[in-house]
Amino acid sequence: MSDKTLQMQEQYQHQRNLDSSKLSLDNVYKASYKLKGVIRNTDLIPADAIFPGENIYIKTENLQKTGSFKIRGAYYKISQLTKAEKEAGVVACSAGNHAQGVALACQKLGIKSTIFMPESAPISKIEATRSYGSEIILAGDDYDSSYHAALEYNNKQNKTFIHPFNDPEVMVGQGTIGLEILEQLPDVDTIVVPVGGGGLISGIAHVIKNLKPDCKIIGVQASKAPSMYESVKAGKICHIGDENTFADGINVKEPGDLTFKAVQKYVDELLTVTEDEIAYSLLTLMEKQKVVCEGAGTVALAAVLFDKIEHKEKNVCVILSGGNIDVNILSRVIQRGLLVGGRNTVLNIALTDKPGQLQYVAGVIADLGANVTEVNYNPGGKNTAIDSCVLNLKLETKNLEHIKNVENALQEQGFELVDN
Amino acid sequence: MSDKTLQMQEQYQHQRNLDSSKLSLDNVYKASYKLKGVIRNTDLIPADAIFPGENIYIKTENLQKTGSFKIRGAYYKISQLTKAEKEAGVVACSAGNHAQGVALACQKLGIKSTIFMPESAPISKIEATRSYGSEIILAGDDYDSSYHAALEYNNKQNKTFIHPFNDPEVMVGQGTIGLEILEQLPDVDTIVVPVGGGGLISGIAHVIKNLKPDCKIIGVQASKAPSMYESVKAGKICHIGDENTFADGINVKEPGDLTFKAVQKYVDELLTVTEDEIAYSLLTLMEKQKVVCEGAGTVALAAVLFDKIEHKEKNVCVILSGGNIDVNILSRVIQRGLLVGGRNTVLNIALTDKPGQLQYVAGVIADLGANVTEVNYNPGGKNTAIDSCVLNLKLETKNLEHIKNVENALQEQGFELVDN
Repeated sequence: MSDKTLQMQEQYQHQRNLDSSKLSLDNVYKASYKLKGVIRNTDLIPADAIFPGENIYIKTENLQKTGSFKIRGAYYKISQLTKAEKEAGVVACSAGNHAQGVALACQKLGIKSTIFMPESAPISKIEATRSYGSEIILAGDDYDSSYHAALEYNNKQNKTFIHPFNDPEVMVGQGTIGLEILEQLPDVDTIVVPVGGGGLISGIAHVIKNLKPDCKIIGVQASKAPSMYESVKAGKICHIGDENTFADGINVKEPGDLTFKAVQKYVDELLTVTEDEIAYSLLTLMEKQKVVCEGAGTVALAAVLFDKIEHKEKNVCVILSGGNIDVNILSRVIQRGLLVGGRNTVLNIALTDKPGQLQYVAGVIADLGANVTEVNYNPGGKNTAIDSCVLNLKLETKNLEHIKNVENALQEQGFELVDN
Repeated sequence: MSDKTLQMQEQYQHQRNLDSSKLSLDNVYKASYKLKGVIRNTDLIPADAIFPGENIYIKTENLQKTGSFKIRGAYYKISQLTKAEKEAGVVACSAGNHAQGVALACQKLGIKSTIFMPESAPISKIEATRSYGSEIILAGDDYDSSYHAALEYNNKQNKTFIHPFNDPEVMVGQGTIGLEILEQLPDVDTIVVPVGGGGLISGIAHVIKNLKPDCKIIGVQASKAPSMYESVKAGKICHIGDENTFADGINVKEPGDLTFKAVQKYVDELLTVTEDEIAYSLLTLMEKQKVVCEGAGTVALAAVLFDKIEHKEKNVCVILSGGNIDVNILSRVIQRGLLVGGRNTVLNIALTDKPGQLQYVAGVIADLGANVTEVNYNPGGKNTAIDSCVLNLKLETKNLEHIKNVENALQEQGFELVDN
C-alpha cells in the first residue's frame, strides 16, 4: 500500500469514528430482525454424501442472495446510517461479493451507491453489481489501486465509505449467521469459517463465544494468502506479499485492526489449505452435495476434508461463504480437481513411427476401461529417439490406482512413458 | 422390449396386484409423516438471480438425500410391505437415482436389497448405491436388458420388485413434494415438473389438483425422449425409439399404464426441450443459483428459461428433480453451455505460412478483450490454399455479440475464417 493510501486510510479511520463496542450481542439480535425479509435464512444441510455416518453440516451462504454472506453486513451497516448520511449515499470498493452486497442493500434501502471495481474485474461481476442499480467506476489495475481511487473520491464527497470487513457494524451483520447456526444445530461443537479480512469470523465468533463458549471456532485461509494466520502467529498485523490464489475472495493483504483484535480474542485456531486441496474440495462439493462454491467459499470444507480438523463424533458446521465463481474458471477447476482425484490424466507415450502403434496403445487402454477424450501427436522431445513421436492422450479414469494400472499395462507392453 | 420381457412384465403386473386407489390424498399425508426424519424437506429458493423481479422458485430436490426425489417414493413403498415381504427383501433395476433411493430406503428400514444395474452404469453411481449396503448385480448392456435380468431373477425369488414409477405407492411418496410446495408457496400458480416415466408428476398432480385445482401442472420432457408427450398426444401409450439424451435420468421408452392415466387426468400441458436448452439451463443454474443439476433435473427450468411457459407475474415453482451428474460429463456440459451462451468459441483462421501472422492475429484478439485458452496449428484443409495453415484458437468471450466483433475485426484485417 502506498504512503498516500495509508495516509488517506488513517484520515478515513479518524473520520469514521468507529466504536468497537458496537459489536455486541444486542446489536446482532437487532441486525437479525432488520435482515428479515431481506436475506435468506440459508439452509444447513447435512454433508452426509461427503462424510457418511458423521455429523458434519454445511451452512450454505453460497445460496444467499447475491451469492455470498456479504449482504448481511452491508445491509445492516447501511441501515444504521443517519438520515443525512443515507441521503448523501455510500461508496465502496470491491472486485466481487462486497460490491454486490452493498449494491443490493442500497437498492433495498433506496440509497445511491457508487462502487469502485478494478478494471480487471470479471464482466459477470460488474454486470451483476450494475443490475442492482449501482454506479460502477472502474479504476486501477488491481484491488489496492482501485481502493486508493475510491478513498480519494470519497474524501472529496460527503458520502460514507462502507468497508468490507473492518467495521463493527459490518461484523454485527455477519454475526447473524452465528444465531442461525445455534437455532439450526444447537449442539454444535465446532464451526469452521473461511477467513479473508476477518469480518465474517469476527461476527460469528463474537456471538458463539458469548452464547456457547465451549463451541470451537476455527478459521481457515488459503496458504497463498495467509495474512490473518501470519498476523496472529506474530502477535501483530502483518502485510503479506502479492500472490495469486483462486480463492480470490479471501485474498486480503492484511487484516483490519478491529477484526485482528476480535480474532485474537475469540478464535481457537487458524490454519491454511493449499490450492489443490481447495480445487478438490470444490469438485467434491459439486459432485456429492450438488452445490457450487467459489474457491474462497470452499476453504473451510477443505480443512475438514483433508483432516486438518478433528471431526469424528463431533457436530461440525462448515461455512460455505460464497458461490460467485466465473464459469470459465469453474470449468478449469473441475479439470484440476479431476486430475487431483485421479479421475482424469494425461499420458505422454513415446511411439516408434510405424503403422499400428496407435491402435495397439488404444487397445491396451480400452481393455482397462479408461476413456480417451483427447489425442495429440507431437514430434519427439529432447528425451526421445529421433525416429519416434510422442503420443499425448487425455483419459477419463476411475481413480489414482486405475491410472497406475493403465501406466503399468502400457509399460509391460514395452511402451515408454515420458514427461510432457 | 423383447416378447419375453413383455410376458414377464405382464406376469409381474398380475402378481403385484396393484390397486390404483392407493394413490389418495390420505396416503400422501401418511407418507409425509412416514418420511419425517428420513428425507429432507428441501428448500424452495427464489430464482431471482436468473429471473430478477419475477416470482419463480426452485424446489431443490437435487439437494435431497441420495441427490434426487426418488428416495421419497422408494421409502414409502417399501415401508408399506408386509412383515413377510420385508423379511424376503426387495429387487430393483436402475442405472441411477432409483437405485440409490431403494438402497438408502432399505438401509434405513433394515431390509435386504438387490439392485440390478446395466454394466455400463457409471462407477460413481454403482459405488454410491453399494455404499448403502445393497447387493449390486451388473447385468446387460443397457437398461432394458438389465430390467429383463432383474425380472427373471425376481420370478425365481420370493422378493418384491420395486418399480421406479408405475406403482401407486411410489407415486404417493413423490406426491409429498406437492404438500411441501403448498406449505412453502401457498399462492403457487404453476408447477413445472420433469417427466420420465411419470411417477413424480403423477404424485404431485394428484395432490395439487385435489387441494388447489386452479394451479397449473406442466410436464417437461427431453425432445429426444418424448414418450409421455407422444403418448398423451396419441391418446395411447407409445413406445419411442432409442435415442441418447444427456437427460438420461428421464430417458424412458414408454410411460406406465398407471402414470399415463394420472397424467391424462391431471396434467394441463406437456412440452419438450432440446439438448442445447438443457445444457444452457444447467450452466445458468450453476452460475446464477449455485446449484448443480443433472440433465434430467434441469428440463423444467429449461422450459421456463426458454419462455415455453407463461411466467410473468405468476408464482411459478420449478422442480429440480435431481443432481446426480458425472463430473466428467458436467465438465463437457459446461463447455457446451459456454458455447451456446457465447462465452467460449473456437475460431479457425487460414494463415499464410509466413512469420509474424500469429502475433498479428493475437493482437487483434487481445485488443477486443477476448482471452486465448488453446492454440493449435493444423495443415490446411480442402478449402484453403496449398501454402497456408489453419490456426485453431479457443477463446473465452463475453457473449455472442462479442464473438461477432472478434470475427469482424479479423475479417477487416484480411484474415479468412474457415469451417473446422
